[in-house]
Amino acid sequence: MKKIRIGVVGYGNVGKGAVKAVTAAPDMELRGIFTRRDPASLETDDCDVAVFPVSAAEKMTSDIDVIILCGGSATDLPEQGPYFASMFNTVDSYDNHTDILKYMEAIGATAINTTAIMAAGWDPGLFSMMRILSESILPDGASYTFWGKGVSQGHSDAIRHIEGVRHAVQYTIPAGSAIDAVRSGARPELSVRDKHLRECFVVAKSGADRASIEKSIKSMPHYFADYDTTVSFIENDEFMAKHSSMPHGGMALRSGNTGENTHVMELSLKLDSNPDFTGSILTVYARAAFRMAGEGLFGVKTVFDVPPAYLSQKDRRQLIKELL
Amino acid sequence: MKKIRIGVVGYGNVGKGAVKAVTAAPDMELRGIFTRRDPASLETDDCDVAVFPVSAAEKMTSDIDVIILCGGSATDLPEQGPYFASMFNTVDSYDNHTDILKYMEAIGATAINTTAIMAAGWDPGLFSMMRILSESILPDGASYTFWGKGVSQGHSDAIRHIEGVRHAVQYTIPAGSAIDAVRSGARPELSVRDKHLRECFVVAKSGADRASIEKSIKSMPHYFADYDTTVSFIENDEFMAKHSSMPHGGMALRSGNTGENTHVMELSLKLDSNPDFTGSILTVYARAAFRMAGEGLFGVKTVFDVPPAYLSQKDRRQLIKELL
Repeated sequence: MKKIRIGVVGYGNVGKGAVKAVTAAPDMELRGIFTRRDPASLETDDCDVAVFPVSAAEKMTSDIDVIILCGGSATDLPEQGPYFASMFNTVDSYDNHTDILKYMEAIGATAINTTAIMAAGWDPGLFSMMRILSESILPDGASYTFWGKGVSQGHSDAIRHIEGVRHAVQYTIPAGSAIDAVRSGARPELSVRDKHLRECFVVAKSGADRASIEKSIKSMPHYFADYDTTVSFIENDEFMAKHSSMPHGGMALRSGNTGENTHVMELSLKLDSNPDFTGSILTVYARAAFRMAGEGLFGVKTVFDVPPAYLSQKDRRQLIKELL
Repeated sequence: MKKIRIGVVGYGNVGKGAVKAVTAAPDMELRGIFTRRDPASLETDDCDVAVFPVSAAEKMTSDIDVIILCGGSATDLPEQGPYFASMFNTVDSYDNHTDILKYMEAIGATAINTTAIMAAGWDPGLFSMMRILSESILPDGASYTFWGKGVSQGHSDAIRHIEGVRHAVQYTIPAGSAIDAVRSGARPELSVRDKHLRECFVVAKSGADRASIEKSIKSMPHYFADYDTTVSFIENDEFMAKHSSMPHGGMALRSGNTGENTHVMELSLKLDSNPDFTGSILTVYARAAFRMAGEGLFGVKTVFDVPPAYLSQKDRRQLIKELL
């Protein structure tokens, strides 16, 4: 069987996760990592992997079946998504919900003879699938999404920009009482503050005004002001030892009624490594993009457009016998 | 917009659930219930619904877009599935796993110009989707399915066949310790006995030998002998008051690793009424069958073949904006 030839663009945390997943997939072959850094400077876990500058990709359209885009949603993907989709089948985990229709249109404009699956992570992605399934099955109901416990990169960055902060990490924590209320089927009305707590660990620079840092965090609009936020100052050693990993997870829930009967559906994830898991999902959707392109199903796609069978290496009879 | 015209075959508990869901769907119209009983004898919740004998369906192929088959897997569906799929688009919740490939082939042989989605309940169905997703994303892992707490119709029937039993209900209960072990990511090896308990409530006929009934239950091969089983004798009034509803639910779990990192995925359902929920899922897949048939995607299908977008009433832009 011919293997699916994969290129990975971007070698940050998600890129490393995707490389791990592609390397482990028996039906795939990693043809190269593409980076904007100096390729010679890139330290990869497996030294046999070819590393190219991003600019080399356009000459490799006949060598690669699917490009996994592992850049960020703020600046990388809005540029790289449409560019690569014009030449390759692609997958990405775009997650900026405010601009998601705009992004879809930009990709759609270039994915003419390619299949480009966008926003295929866990949220958007797996949680979106749970939302569409559960809303369709229980139209008389209410949906809820909780995130965490996990590191929010955006919130951690926001703290790092405060004067006097050396290191910082922010954990988003779903409120147990809110989860219990949703699981009971009661369809509670929940405010932003009801749903999540924000827990911050900060290493201050020596001589910094800790009270002022704490106040700056807790009063920061959008990021913290609307939440119950705790701030703990810790030493650098403790920070490095306890807060360097990137766990995450969450729950997509819906409760709904059929007449007097109440039903609760829940998809929950508990992840030691958010980027590893995201890289694994991207890899599975790369398989789907390859197959859909093979059938001429071109254009911009989301997880809503992909039949689950396209994600698996197993054939139809095996799927029905083993997994149905 | 033209509504999807639905026929429901079989008016047992699942049929009633499907009728409820179809009636509530603004894009659907219930054209009739088909029954093997005397149509005049059928008591429906809504007296405006037309009731036909099953034999009338073959003359109504141009009046109905999708038939929802609500019969049982033991004897109804093996006969009705291929018969109706030869004339109509169909959906069913076939769940006899042993014969599932045989059933697929029988439907496949007749669904030539129709779309027939089989085994679209919650297990098989939603849990199957979780199994394919989670196994694909975490190939280095282990999957587990737990059922309950809920009524097992098959086990309740088995007890009712014992001499001296007037009424009986059996609840399948997932073992908390087993669930905890799976959720921890430890990938435990679990025996049949480790995973589920069986709790039986029995109303004995007057003068019946209770000790003998209890022994017959606990020693019954396949059904109870391999499980930790409890048997409680109760009075008829208590049975009617407390054990007449049909709750169910369960969990499809997978834990897996990416290198040293462990991830746990879980889909859980808590259902007040198993047949209502199954009827609701069937209704959603009837929408998908109608759309797939409209695109010429004929033949026997499962939940693995259906893009999630086909399940929702919302259009593409709305889906991406609201649910992605």
